[in-house]
Amino acid sequence: MSDPTSDLLPEGLEDRLPQSAAAAARIERDAMAVMGAHGFDRVRPPLIEFEKSMATRTDGLMTRHMFRFVDPRSLRTLALRSDITAQVGRIAATGLSDAPRPLRLCYAGQVVRIAGDQLEPRRENLQIGAELIGSDSAAAAGEMVELAITALEAAGATGISVDFTLPDLVDTLAAETFPLAEEKRDAVRRELDAKDAGGLTDAGGEAYIPLLFATGPFDDALEKLRAIDAGGALSSRLEGLQQIADRVRGRARLTLDPSERHGFEYQSWFGFTIFADGVRGAVGRGGTYLIGGTGEPATGFSLYPEELVEAVKAQESLGNKLFLPLGHDRSAATRLRGQGWRTVEALSDADDAAALGCSHLLDGGEAKPV
Amino acid sequence: MSDPTSDLLPEGLEDRLPQSAAAAARIERDAMAVMGAHGFDRVRPPLIEFEKSMATRTDGLMTRHMFRFVDPRSLRTLALRSDITAQVGRIAATGLSDAPRPLRLCYAGQVVRIAGDQLEPRRENLQIGAELIGSDSAAAAGEMVELAITALEAAGATGISVDFTLPDLVDTLAAETFPLAEEKRDAVRRELDAKDAGGLTDAGGEAYIPLLFATGPFDDALEKLRAIDAGGALSSRLEGLQQIADRVRGRARLTLDPSERHGFEYQSWFGFTIFADGVRGAVGRGGTYLIGGTGEPATGFSLYPEELVEAVKAQESLGNKLFLPLGHDRSAATRLRGQGWRTVEALSDADDAAALGCSHLLDGGEAKPV
Repeated sequence: MSDPTSDLLPEGLEDRLPQSAAAAARIERDAMAVMGAHGFDRVRPPLIEFEKSMATRTDGLMTRHMFRFVDPRSLRTLALRSDITAQVGRIAATGLSDAPRPLRLCYAGQVVRIAGDQLEPRRENLQIGAELIGSDSAAAAGEMVELAITALEAAGATGISVDFTLPDLVDTLAAETFPLAEEKRDAVRRELDAKDAGGLTDAGGEAYIPLLFATGPFDDALEKLRAIDAGGALSSRLEGLQQIADRVRGRARLTLDPSERHGFEYQSWFGFTIFADGVRGAVGRGGTYLIGGTGEPATGFSLYPEELVEAVKAQESLGNKLFLPLGHDRSAATRLRGQGWRTVEALSDADDAAALGCSHLLDGGEAKPV
Repeated sequence: MSDPTSDLLPEGLEDRLPQSAAAAARIERDAMAVMGAHGFDRVRPPLIEFEKSMATRTDGLMTRHMFRFVDPRSLRTLALRSDITAQVGRIAATGLSDAPRPLRLCYAGQVVRIAGDQLEPRRENLQIGAELIGSDSAAAAGEMVELAITALEAAGATGISVDFTLPDLVDTLAAETFPLAEEKRDAVRRELDAKDAGGLTDAGGEAYIPLLFATGPFDDALEKLRAIDAGGALSSRLEGLQQIADRVRGRARLTLDPSERHGFEYQSWFGFTIFADGVRGAVGRGGTYLIGGTGEPATGFSLYPEELVEAVKAQESLGNKLFLPLGHDRSAATRLRGQGWRTVEALSDADDAAALGCSHLLDGGEAKPV
């Protein structure tokens, strides 16, 4: 016998057992089917890459959050991916650099990070996403927000809400509208993140305080933001937001929190976070960005459906199981599988239909209740 | 601009671009659907585990072939999985220890190993498989061989052949039939692997030479093996082989190579290797074994479809793409997606249907050829 403690999994890692694995697999399949139907082609980058390559493609992606190890073959440092977006950016810049733009790619796969935190203790996640490469326009953003909503609906999410943000808000306003020296901007961003009016004043960003109140339901918040933007520095952004919101109005509850930057380390003018009823935390996040290295504009999103799996797994159907007794009619079994039955074959007389979770058994070529 | 060499992937790792990713995703989906229809429930173990736990579950699984690294959280060594079978054994022994037997589980996921070799340079593989836990009988083996064939057929493999082996052949014969001291058995196994009659004689295994000729088409080879097994030590095994072969006769070309041990480091009485037309090397492998730690009998197989992907990807259809001009009829687009069309939405006047790979465009609510 082995030491039972050797069977425990490391903190933040888990086995998905049948009910939960079925929910995860179905969610992945349904979300990917929606992306495929909207013209996004799947790519599959590898689980590990050179650390340096991972770091190049995305400014905000910290390789220090990745498991890293030396490759005995190349003697270079490899990293286990913590994000697939950066890998898709690499593919767009290399293997698919000659493909026509806009280039629509999607992906699904496991990602791992060294440290979970209290809010999100998981260290391994399923990441499902899509990237529209070659455009960061409002039209592109509208397509991607709607696609994220449609994919999540197909995956079983309900009560979807989308929170918009303007990741480069401070930089945009700091040039003229509310002048702010380069070296003060980080502090102002931090106080905006903290929603701390006093802190903003201390940081020399008193002019930014009204932004703290331009949040909430989309239409109201946008109006407040328009009033703040007297100089019109934000006008193209606000018009873009309006266009995106008009496209998905009625599909989701829309809110605006223009200074929210958490999770938007590499996005440019537009970002969004998606929530769903009964699902703890954000279920997805996306926005516009420039691909590291080439600077090509892109718009994308990632879904992290682990908590959605938790929310729906109890209702996930594993399908009806049909017990096939010893010496059963094999062609009837094949026919019934074709009708959607899941068959469970007896290996010996000891096998019991009910104990094996079968609701029916094959009798006279037909499924009869056990 | 980044250093272009930083974008190269490590040796043995690759991006799957759309054509190849679509083939891999379809193969995974079709093979998993077959396993599900035969009563196998999916599980999803994590990508990384404690090295010690990986090592416990499977005798033949060498953690020195895995990427390993220290977990800053637990300060213990973790390993990136190179095999999922051992993880499923752990699940059977822990989270599903109380589930009724036989327990049917299946899985699909990526596995990674440190070193490729000349025959198989890939360091990351897709592994798809099924484990029947609680039985290593001929009935269980027959079910699993047939399931492997059915799954591969659904995945698009043709001209399937299955090569049977008896992994514990030497141990079984060495007790009485062809007595052989414990310390000589390894050498005899090696010479049998090498198919070297002279080597066998030198190793003191002259009596084993006839085994080298009991190979080839199943019925002939089994008859030769029966003739060699005068003492009857193999009789239950040969009967089992016969039973398995009878079950899948007509579904695949069957061969027997009773002393083949390559890839069967942890199997017990029965092993099999699967090949398919046009696919380089083995496409799958399985057999009976005892789960490490608990010693519970089990029968399983793993498919490694990477070369099957290579063989079929050129024929893989990505589906017909339908261009949606600016201001298109959105309900018509939804309806056509429901009919299987993949739509590609125009973002601006510059977007060109043909350049974006669209065969049709939406015009008057209908798909018209471009």
